Amino acid sequence: MIQNIYIIGVGLIGGSLALDIKNKRPEVKVYGIDKSEDHINQALELGVIDHKATFEDLDKADLVVLAIPVDASVSVLPDVLDKISDFTLVADVGSTKSDICKVVANHPRRRNFLAMHPIAGTEFSGPKAAIRDLFNQKTNIICEVEKTAFKLQEKAVGLFTEIGMRMRYMNPESHDKHIAYVSHLSHISAFMLGKTVIEKEKNERDIFDMAGSGFESTVRLAKSSPAMWTPIFKQNKTNVVETLEDYIANLTQFKNLIENDDFEGVFNEMKDTNYIKQILNGIQ
Amino acid sequence: MIQNIYIIGVGLIGGSLALDIKNKRPEVKVYGIDKSEDHINQALELGVIDHKATFEDLDKADLVVLAIPVDASVSVLPDVLDKISDFTLVADVGSTKSDICKVVANHPRRRNFLAMHPIAGTEFSGPKAAIRDLFNQKTNIICEVEKTAFKLQEKAVGLFTEIGMRMRYMNPESHDKHIAYVSHLSHISAFMLGKTVIEKEKNERDIFDMAGSGFESTVRLAKSSPAMWTPIFKQNKTNVVETLEDYIANLTQFKNLIENDDFEGVFNEMKDTNYIKQILNGIQ
Repeated sequence: MIQNIYIIGVGLIGGSLALDIKNKRPEVKVYGIDKSEDHINQALELGVIDHKATFEDLDKADLVVLAIPVDASVSVLPDVLDKISDFTLVADVGSTKSDICKVVANHPRRRNFLAMHPIAGTEFSGPKAAIRDLFNQKTNIICEVEKTAFKLQEKAVGLFTEIGMRMRYMNPESHDKHIAYVSHLSHISAFMLGKTVIEKEKNERDIFDMAGSGFESTVRLAKSSPAMWTPIFKQNKTNVVETLEDYIANLTQFKNLIENDDFEGVFNEMKDTNYIKQILNGIQ
Repeated sequence: MIQNIYIIGVGLIGGSLALDIKNKRPEVKVYGIDKSEDHINQALELGVIDHKATFEDLDKADLVVLAIPVDASVSVLPDVLDKISDFTLVADVGSTKSDICKVVANHPRRRNFLAMHPIAGTEFSGPKAAIRDLFNQKTNIICEVEKTAFKLQEKAVGLFTEIGMRMRYMNPESHDKHIAYVSHLSHISAFMLGKTVIEKEKNERDIFDMAGSGFESTVRLAKSSPAMWTPIFKQNKTNVVETLEDYIANLTQFKNLIENDDFEGVFNEMKDTNYIKQILNGIQ
C-alpha cells in the first residue's frame, strides 16, 4: 500500500501530481521537499502537500517522486536511493531519460527506481502552477521497466493509472530521440519565434496591437522556465541539435521556394503538412 | 445608413463578419457571393447570409466586403469598383495591403475603397468555420484612410466598432512589414514544425502518443488553408523572406550555443525571450 509519498520539487509537475493523488486517495500523506523555502510554504498554504520534509525522512517513504530539473535529478538520484528503504519506489518525471538511467545503471538499488516521463505540462512553473487533472488521458512513458522490481512498479503504475495516465514503454534512447522532435523542438521553435519578433518590433505596441491569436498560441511555449529547459537541452544535446538541423533545413527550403517564386511548391508543402490535422485529431 | 451588405467570399472571415453584423443590426440584409455553390448553400442554411447574389447586383450595395484570398481580391477589386454605385463602400479584409492599394491607386472610384485588415481568425476555413464574436476586441488595421471618402469610411468604421473592432491606422508598407513578423512568420514556423515532425516520425502512433499540449498549440497554425496562405506569401515575398532569414539566423545561433556547450548562453536566450510574457499579457 502506498501511504507516504515524498515529492522532491513541489512545482508544476510535482505539485499537480500531489493534488491528483490526494484527490483520488485521501488516505495518502504527501510530504514535500524543495530547496526553496518559499515554494514549500506556498505548497503547504495551497494544500498541495500535507507536510514539509527533508532527505533524511526518505526511509519512511513508500513512493518518492523526483520532479526537479533533469540535471538536479541526475545528481541527487544516487543519494536518494541510498537513503530509502528496500520497499520504497523512486520515480522521476524528467523530460530526458538516457542520463538518469545511466547514472543508476549499477546502483545496488536500481530495482527501486522507475524512470518515467508523463507527457503533460503548461508553460507555467512553481507550486502556484499546480493544477488538478493535468495527467488525465496523458501518456506516461516508462523506460527500462524490466529493471524495476515488479511489485514496486506494479503499485506505482496502479496509482498513476488511477489519476488518468496511459502507460507506454520505450527504451531511454528512443524516448530521447522521439521527444526531441515532438516536445523539445516545439519549445525552441517558440522561443526563437518570440526572440525574432521582439528583436524586430522595438515598439511593443506594434506586437501588442497586431499579434492575433495565431502568434499567441505559436509563441506560448516561449514563456517556459529557462531553469527547467536548459538542462534538458544539455542532456539531449545530440538529438536536439539534429532536430534543429532538420527544422532549419525545412525552413531554408521553404524560403528558397518563395525566393524562386515557386508558389506551387509553397502550396504543396503546406497542403502536405495539413496532414497534421488528422494526427492532432487523434490526440484530442 | 448601411442596409444592404454584400459579402464576397462567405468563408471564415466573411461569414463571421456577417454573423456579427446581423446580430448587432437585425435590419441589415446580408447578401453572399462565392464562386463555390456549395459554400453559398451552406452559408444560407447556416443563416450566415440572407440571400445569394452576383456581381451584377453590386450597385445595390451600401457596403461590399471582399473576403477572398489576397490574389483574388487584387484581381477582382477594380471590377467591383466599376460595378458599384457612388454611395457604396468596398472594404477588403486581406492580410497584405500594399498590392491591393497599388492596384486601385488611380482608379476613378479609389475614394469608395477602404483597405483594412482585421487581425482575427482561426486555423479553420469555409462557411462552417464562421463564428460569432470573432472580431470582438480585435485590432482592425486601416491603411491609407485619407484616400477614402470620409462619409463612407465613417459609416463603415461605425459598424466595425459596433462589432468590437479597435481601429488602428498605418500605411500599407508598414502594415506588410510588421504583419510578416507577428503573423506570417508564425504560420511558416508552425508549418515547418509540423513538416519536420511528420517526416521524422514515420510512425504516427509516436506523434499521437508523445505529443503533449505544447506541440499541439505550437503546430496549430499548420492546419491553415494553403489556398489562403500561398498568395499572402507571394504578395508579401520580400518581408516574409526577411523574417525567415532572421528566424533561421536565430535558430542557427541557438543551435551553435548548444553545440558549443554554452548553456549559460542558452539559458540567457530563453530568459530574455520570457519577456514575451509581459507582451502577451498586454494582448489578453
